[in-house]
Amino acid sequence: MKLYDSPMAPNPRRVRIFLAEKDIEVPTVEVDIAGAENRKSPYVDRNPMGGVPVLELDDGTWLAESVAICRYFEETHPDPPLMGEGAQDRALVEMWNRRMESEVLIMIAQVFRNSHEFFKGRIPQVPEYGEACRGVATKRLEWLDQELASREFVAGDRFTIADITALCGIDFGRVSKIRIAPDQKHLARWHEAVSGRPSATA
Amino acid sequence: MKLYDSPMAPNPRRVRIFLAEKDIEVPTVEVDIAGAENRKSPYVDRNPMGGVPVLELDDGTWLAESVAICRYFEETHPDPPLMGEGAQDRALVEMWNRRMESEVLIMIAQVFRNSHEFFKGRIPQVPEYGEACRGVATKRLEWLDQELASREFVAGDRFTIADITALCGIDFGRVSKIRIAPDQKHLARWHEAVSGRPSATA
Repeated sequence: MKLYDSPMAPNPRRVRIFLAEKDIEVPTVEVDIAGAENRKSPYVDRNPMGGVPVLELDDGTWLAESVAICRYFEETHPDPPLMGEGAQDRALVEMWNRRMESEVLIMIAQVFRNSHEFFKGRIPQVPEYGEACRGVATKRLEWLDQELASREFVAGDRFTIADITALCGIDFGRVSKIRIAPDQKHLARWHEAVSGRPSATA
Repeated sequence: MKLYDSPMAPNPRRVRIFLAEKDIEVPTVEVDIAGAENRKSPYVDRNPMGGVPVLELDDGTWLAESVAICRYFEETHPDPPLMGEGAQDRALVEMWNRRMESEVLIMIAQVFRNSHEFFKGRIPQVPEYGEACRGVATKRLEWLDQELASREFVAGDRFTIADITALCGIDFGRVSKIRIAPDQKHLARWHEAVSGRPSATA
């Protein structure tokens, strides 16, 4: 088993934190995304979307998509549970993880993709769309601050994959100057707590 | 238990097809999305993102996000399995479902959101971004056609949630004039088969 990884991007960090929380060690192979290694053969022959990370299983299967990789490890190493326990809790954790993806991580990533030098010539950038996403991301952090007024973690009273997604999204905002505002005390309290876990440096 | 539903949008259709495949009946409440009922109180008090569908559970909990709702029913009504069986298969179905979401359904929905009259004044539309998404969606249908050359369904030899997501995405393309091209024989064969299942009319 091998994890195709990159220290630069937010999605591989999600999987590294998930593995660290479960105390699982997987050998990694660094993919040179700055050099577009992930956009060329042989990488795209096995992962046509070109994303990182990918988990190569022992039978040679390539498993892409961060949350699909996390789900594999949740099934094979259930403790500690990071994706909920029982039907209702699992569904609610999935809801919160998806909200953290679509409303926080993806919005913040779209600001970067559509405005940063790194993506020039790699994708058709639309700066106006990036700025619209910046507006959404900023509002969503205000909302998340209020949500965190009444509970310890994003999906309830226990650390889950939804916290990992939110952390990786918010930290990736720095490069686009999206930050937790000084008056967002609940979000700041949560961010300090999750950043202080040993897994956060994975 | 109640499902907040809308006949207009692609995401509620995903859940209706999923339920039909499992032969589960849930009472529905129609949300007037044309009248923006889902963007106002009391709806947004319980689902701040304003999306449809939402499943109201018997304890009053509101469960949003289509795939989270599907996961709830997959756990409570495992037969027939639509999200895979066993760790590796579940992860691969998740990978394919996520690819069908981010590369097909969301790309096609972004064309609609950023160019259609319906969203004028509702969101900041960026037509140039919509057109970029049209280009991506068109390429992704070419890719999916080739993927389907070697297998019956999107995630393998059995119908899964990934087929439901792809079907709802592709059918939603009609309103933006995104269609299966005449030379995409594999995609057309698959589309005819999945559209012919009784669940497709749910």
